[in-house]
Amino acid sequence: MYVDIGNAIETTPGVSRDSLDRLDDHVARAHERIQAGRADDEHGYAALNLPETTDPNAIHRAVEPFADPAAFLTVGIGGSALGAATITAALDSEVDAHYLDNIDPVQTRMLLDSLPLDRTVVNVVSRSGTTAETLSTFLVVREAMDAAGVDWTDRTLVTTGEEGNLRGLAARHDLPSLPVPGGVPGRFSALSTVGLAAAAVCGHDLEAVLDGGADAAKSLSGSLFESPAYGYGAVSYALADRGALTNVMMPYAESLEDFAEWFAQLWAESLGKDGLGQTPARALGATDQHSQLQLYRAGPHDKLVTLVRPREYDDLGIPETDLAGLSYLGGSSLGELLDAEFEATEASLAAADVPNVRVELDAVDEYALGELLYAMEAACILYGELAAVSTFTQPAVEWGKRAARGLLGGGDFEEAAAVADKQSLEID
Amino acid sequence: MYVDIGNAIETTPGVSRDSLDRLDDHVARAHERIQAGRADDEHGYAALNLPETTDPNAIHRAVEPFADPAAFLTVGIGGSALGAATITAALDSEVDAHYLDNIDPVQTRMLLDSLPLDRTVVNVVSRSGTTAETLSTFLVVREAMDAAGVDWTDRTLVTTGEEGNLRGLAARHDLPSLPVPGGVPGRFSALSTVGLAAAAVCGHDLEAVLDGGADAAKSLSGSLFESPAYGYGAVSYALADRGALTNVMMPYAESLEDFAEWFAQLWAESLGKDGLGQTPARALGATDQHSQLQLYRAGPHDKLVTLVRPREYDDLGIPETDLAGLSYLGGSSLGELLDAEFEATEASLAAADVPNVRVELDAVDEYALGELLYAMEAACILYGELAAVSTFTQPAVEWGKRAARGLLGGGDFEEAAAVADKQSLEID
Repeated sequence: MYVDIGNAIETTPGVSRDSLDRLDDHVARAHERIQAGRADDEHGYAALNLPETTDPNAIHRAVEPFADPAAFLTVGIGGSALGAATITAALDSEVDAHYLDNIDPVQTRMLLDSLPLDRTVVNVVSRSGTTAETLSTFLVVREAMDAAGVDWTDRTLVTTGEEGNLRGLAARHDLPSLPVPGGVPGRFSALSTVGLAAAAVCGHDLEAVLDGGADAAKSLSGSLFESPAYGYGAVSYALADRGALTNVMMPYAESLEDFAEWFAQLWAESLGKDGLGQTPARALGATDQHSQLQLYRAGPHDKLVTLVRPREYDDLGIPETDLAGLSYLGGSSLGELLDAEFEATEASLAAADVPNVRVELDAVDEYALGELLYAMEAACILYGELAAVSTFTQPAVEWGKRAARGLLGGGDFEEAAAVADKQSLEID
Repeated sequence: MYVDIGNAIETTPGVSRDSLDRLDDHVARAHERIQAGRADDEHGYAALNLPETTDPNAIHRAVEPFADPAAFLTVGIGGSALGAATITAALDSEVDAHYLDNIDPVQTRMLLDSLPLDRTVVNVVSRSGTTAETLSTFLVVREAMDAAGVDWTDRTLVTTGEEGNLRGLAARHDLPSLPVPGGVPGRFSALSTVGLAAAAVCGHDLEAVLDGGADAAKSLSGSLFESPAYGYGAVSYALADRGALTNVMMPYAESLEDFAEWFAQLWAESLGKDGLGQTPARALGATDQHSQLQLYRAGPHDKLVTLVRPREYDDLGIPETDLAGLSYLGGSSLGELLDAEFEATEASLAAADVPNVRVELDAVDEYALGELLYAMEAACILYGELAAVSTFTQPAVEWGKRAARGLLGGGDFEEAAAVADKQSLEID
């Protein structure tokens, strides 16, 4: 992975080269804190040990009973789905990977109606075994299998903690199961059982993913100028501190669209605290040049734009044409056009004084994905250290969970009472 | 459509009820300006006349030659694709609607390999007939049809302006064609030929879409308290002016995910000017409660969260369960859970003093989509009037286009020279 921060220095907002040098002392101290946390397998920091602690063979063994599946359906929400989705969406496979990571009844029915349930493996993923969305959806999936005459106990894998409902269910029905790693919040679990079971069934090379992560781990050092991960994290932090409260994550590869979703959770849930945090905005090149670029160039100077691309990919030639004014395209390729637009957009942001960072992968493959996911996690953890926030918690989502529980299940929930008190000013 | 602004008053940032009353005078004047523009079919304002000026029969006639297609492929980028995608993604159909709205070689090949080209209709959409991405992709599609032994002239519809390459191509090969409406920027063209051809082939009721738009037009009035569209536009403007520089568009229906994309273009490209403009952030309920909600509640108070949902939809029951702690879910439904989470999230934002607006549709159907798209366009135009920006232009995207053209085609482009001068600080 290559990170180029040249276009984020002296922009508006921007960080001066001198300030970056001073910030590098903070990075050195933060790196020590991170390494100490890793050495003790502390909550959260343990995520950065996953390339060493994840056993790919255990994952292969857990999915082995499911011979020749046509589809792999992950039932899980947030961090229980996004890491797996990032990897399977990026890579080609004979097995279709699907995700039920919402509770939309229309979408759920449509997907279940379209799947060959007798050749589908279901992976239900919830650390606690009590996630309302995931368990509700799993109950619906189980019923659909019953209705289709499929024995759900033959088709279900469980990924969960050491105790709880799902662990009990697995024991009762002798289901294959995987543990979730201890001390690793869901959004940091891509390089564990949580992110890799789908990849295994889809035939991807888990060892290569973990190798990429391990090499990214090796490249962490006490200087932002020597570690791509820390370079990205430190510059993002410095820019946010100077007013870039939005971080546009804009891959120039459709295969990395899910990566932008994964990044958005990582960044928002880890850093959105104490009134701080960059808002991730997901974009896609080249498409969003025709949608968002006007705003990025001419709107408020409150953004960092992160441009991501692979250096190598399978290209597709553009046939010659006699259409007036378009002959410059013929004999070129879609990839050359995409690359020209990437560089043009990068320069057009720089010309408008908008900070941007270039992140490049060698290719979209297992190794590079492992490297990218690990590096972004390390970048996020570094940012959290620099900002002195509680990177590994997400306390602000609990209020809504209690309110929803109160609304549905009854009982004495003050949050549900607050919902009933809503002030309305309706216009219709 | 129903807009409830009760949770956007006296929040942080927020607008006081008194200020809203004062702002209503501005709304009255802006409404006069908009109505005058509509009366003269002025550039941009003409978009608000589309429910009257669009002839659904002309669209039906243009697609009539293509009997019994299995797939409808739109080749177009930005506003040439997003309106059509919003409608076809929201509604069920026997015909699969696909979009090539990027130039990603991997994705383009994968889609073309998967389509039954002999039963696919291609709609190539470009007002100017020179859009590099669209024309390049069309040349690739045409070659794929040749390779598959399909006569592309039998399978191609052209949607373009009165002159230019594509118009000439249509004449030369006697292709069915549709005009693009005059005076309507692409991002405002959903209720025209540009947005409706795909819907027609997918069997949707164009008249109902236009009826929804026409009724939304009737509800425009000189007061934000009497028009849902203006209520939304005025509150968004007032909040942005007071520091809500991000507008989170968060539908609680997967069928409306593409709507959020369409909205993002409308908002960003129309209002991102002169250092002003709200950054649209696309989110999805309930999924993003497990991803973005922590940030929305506990991060910087720089956001308006727009929560959108249909009041009616096909529901799906949750089977009874004996899993410990989950019995409150059994006998309920995914829809009830989704609705409880919608209301809980809305209240949890309010409890954290974060402004939010509720937008409700009767259902996700043709009529409501027409109403929603029209109302959001009117909201955007009102916002642009209040902010005194040039809503209907997008000058800041031209720099990059010239640079890309220079990089690919050569010639003397100062923008391409600026690209070559890029300052690098690469970390690897």
